Amino acid sequence: MDSLTVEQILEDNVPEQQLKTVKRVLYGREIEALDLPPMEKGLQCELKGYKLGGAIAEQLRAPRVVKVAIIQHGLVVPTSEPIRVQRDEIHKKVTKYIEHAATCGANIVCMQELWTMPMAFCTREKYPWNEFAEDALTGPTTTLMVKIAQKHGIVIVSSILERESSNSDIIWNTTVVINSDGRVLGKQRKNHIPRNGDFNESTYYMEGNLGHPVFDTTFGKIGVVTCYGRHHPLNWLMYGINGAEIVFNPSAIIAEQFETLWGVEARCAAISNSYYTCAINRVGTEVYPNAFTSGDGKPPHKELGEFFGSSYITAPDGTRTPGLNRTGDGVLIAEIDLNLCRQVRDLWNFPMTRRLDLYSRELTKATDPNYQPQIVGK
Amino acid sequence: MDSLTVEQILEDNVPEQQLKTVKRVLYGREIEALDLPPMEKGLQCELKGYKLGGAIAEQLRAPRVVKVAIIQHGLVVPTSEPIRVQRDEIHKKVTKYIEHAATCGANIVCMQELWTMPMAFCTREKYPWNEFAEDALTGPTTTLMVKIAQKHGIVIVSSILERESSNSDIIWNTTVVINSDGRVLGKQRKNHIPRNGDFNESTYYMEGNLGHPVFDTTFGKIGVVTCYGRHHPLNWLMYGINGAEIVFNPSAIIAEQFETLWGVEARCAAISNSYYTCAINRVGTEVYPNAFTSGDGKPPHKELGEFFGSSYITAPDGTRTPGLNRTGDGVLIAEIDLNLCRQVRDLWNFPMTRRLDLYSRELTKATDPNYQPQIVGK
Repeated sequence: MDSLTVEQILEDNVPEQQLKTVKRVLYGREIEALDLPPMEKGLQCELKGYKLGGAIAEQLRAPRVVKVAIIQHGLVVPTSEPIRVQRDEIHKKVTKYIEHAATCGANIVCMQELWTMPMAFCTREKYPWNEFAEDALTGPTTTLMVKIAQKHGIVIVSSILERESSNSDIIWNTTVVINSDGRVLGKQRKNHIPRNGDFNESTYYMEGNLGHPVFDTTFGKIGVVTCYGRHHPLNWLMYGINGAEIVFNPSAIIAEQFETLWGVEARCAAISNSYYTCAINRVGTEVYPNAFTSGDGKPPHKELGEFFGSSYITAPDGTRTPGLNRTGDGVLIAEIDLNLCRQVRDLWNFPMTRRLDLYSRELTKATDPNYQPQIVGK
Repeated sequence: MDSLTVEQILEDNVPEQQLKTVKRVLYGREIEALDLPPMEKGLQCELKGYKLGGAIAEQLRAPRVVKVAIIQHGLVVPTSEPIRVQRDEIHKKVTKYIEHAATCGANIVCMQELWTMPMAFCTREKYPWNEFAEDALTGPTTTLMVKIAQKHGIVIVSSILERESSNSDIIWNTTVVINSDGRVLGKQRKNHIPRNGDFNESTYYMEGNLGHPVFDTTFGKIGVVTCYGRHHPLNWLMYGINGAEIVFNPSAIIAEQFETLWGVEARCAAISNSYYTCAINRVGTEVYPNAFTSGDGKPPHKELGEFFGSSYITAPDGTRTPGLNRTGDGVLIAEIDLNLCRQVRDLWNFPMTRRLDLYSRELTKATDPNYQPQIVGK
């Protein structure tokens, strides 16, 4: 695993004038770094912040400036430790990160997918891993996050493994949204579940049944696309249609093959839907007690490939922040003006020109098992 | 305008080992350059070729290797010259490029959007520009392309301004697909029309009425997303649903604001739909006889912003070629195996997990003017 990010390599090697060109093409408009208070000593965590800019001053509408924070992190203790210890240690560490984000003025904070646990689905073992599942409203993670949200007046977007005890003990991949007053606004369940290699999640939980809710928080309208849902443009689209201004993409994604997709998909979704997107990945190599195979013909092993971090935020016009680092914990803060969403919509007209009526008819036809694709034969 | 491409700047400045990292993250798998016969002397045209690779050898299906060529070019004579001269000179020049692509073994060739004319819609003048419009079947461009297709046994994808004389003289932005035997397989009309700045096309022609046809050519199933249709994931999706293996995106796009989108959208479409995409842009600054304004409060001027070329091809797994140059004519050839489409679909399961039934219902609801977005209030 290379430890440097692409941005670091570019900054280190490309002369200033050419670096400007490279950044303009690859990252968009020039953006300013934010001056942020440093983390307390002893915390091994990168801290970066940017003012994403781009919005004009409107005459009739005041700017709606908010600060969004995304947090990437790795496990704290080995996966062989008791479940409760693993979770408590992550709670403890990440709470410090969230609180520092709040100190930096963050209004909304989102962590990676299933941030309280390892991505243990590669093992195909149900126990002890399913014990990480908790009640979305009353479980230990939501209980803790409610306290922190209330204490700091921030919105928290928290992706957890949900146990729905009132419904045959079903497991879901769920994201809980807590408003700045500490009230749980609601939850979202992962709409698209991977079925490939070590991302063997479809034997643990099923496709979400809550649609595409947009949460009207104190600091803007937000949606959640969980990890693999990133590959599905229709998933992103429905949040746009439902009015989202920021869509979070808590993820867990490893380097082999997928790193080249990482900078493309969430960024393209921001462009297509004229909203902000926040892509968050975990870091580190997770090691499991028992060896497992990966469906690739290779020998059994105990390590899941390395999660490569690189979390980043994109504006509605496609301008993006540099990524966080690839190997360690990090907090990325972006100051954004939500007014930019509508301004870009007016400028580029993507929503107005999208011809939903055409596509709703075409997709309805296409879902018929007897659908005849529109093919012009030779 | 910077003349160097990002790829050139990276190659010139980043040390070998780090360059590997940068390329892996930004461009995907390592790809080989193709050894191609040089252009005839006197032609000012870049020639590049790559073997995109990535497909495994299957037991029951032979590889389906084809060579795709995309061509970017600028105007030949000033826009003040007679229409016929402007078109003839472009015909002459581009014919040489197509024939050289055939010499290189190309099976399918596609040029940029409206490749026979300037992007004169910025002027908002209907004459003389509408005189570039021609019959899609019997006009001078299709007549010429049919001959070349037949002579070389190649498929040609040709984007022209269409005059539909049999239907109230309506104008369309149309792409004609000619099979390797010289037969016109059919045509596609641009589905999404821009309404911004100098891309004032919506006063010249309307949204296409031909759906999302996939043309089953001698060398694979192909679709066409014309320029601005690139911003619409549903447009790309329907070609995927209809079975496209390669989707061409003939475009005309200028640098200001849009260059940072260029590498994202067609590439994301290749990933989301597990097919090849070919993004083709024109080059050069076009100058018009009469000054015009651009809807941005700036003074009248005669130049349209500079088209930045940078045409590129992406494989279904997100691996992409470097771009052609930013300022001059170019031919890019990619050797691809169409079998990779199905292999990536099997590997990543994006089509199987896309839940079309859910979205056809949701989009149908969303097209109702009384649609109530799914918003969870504070």
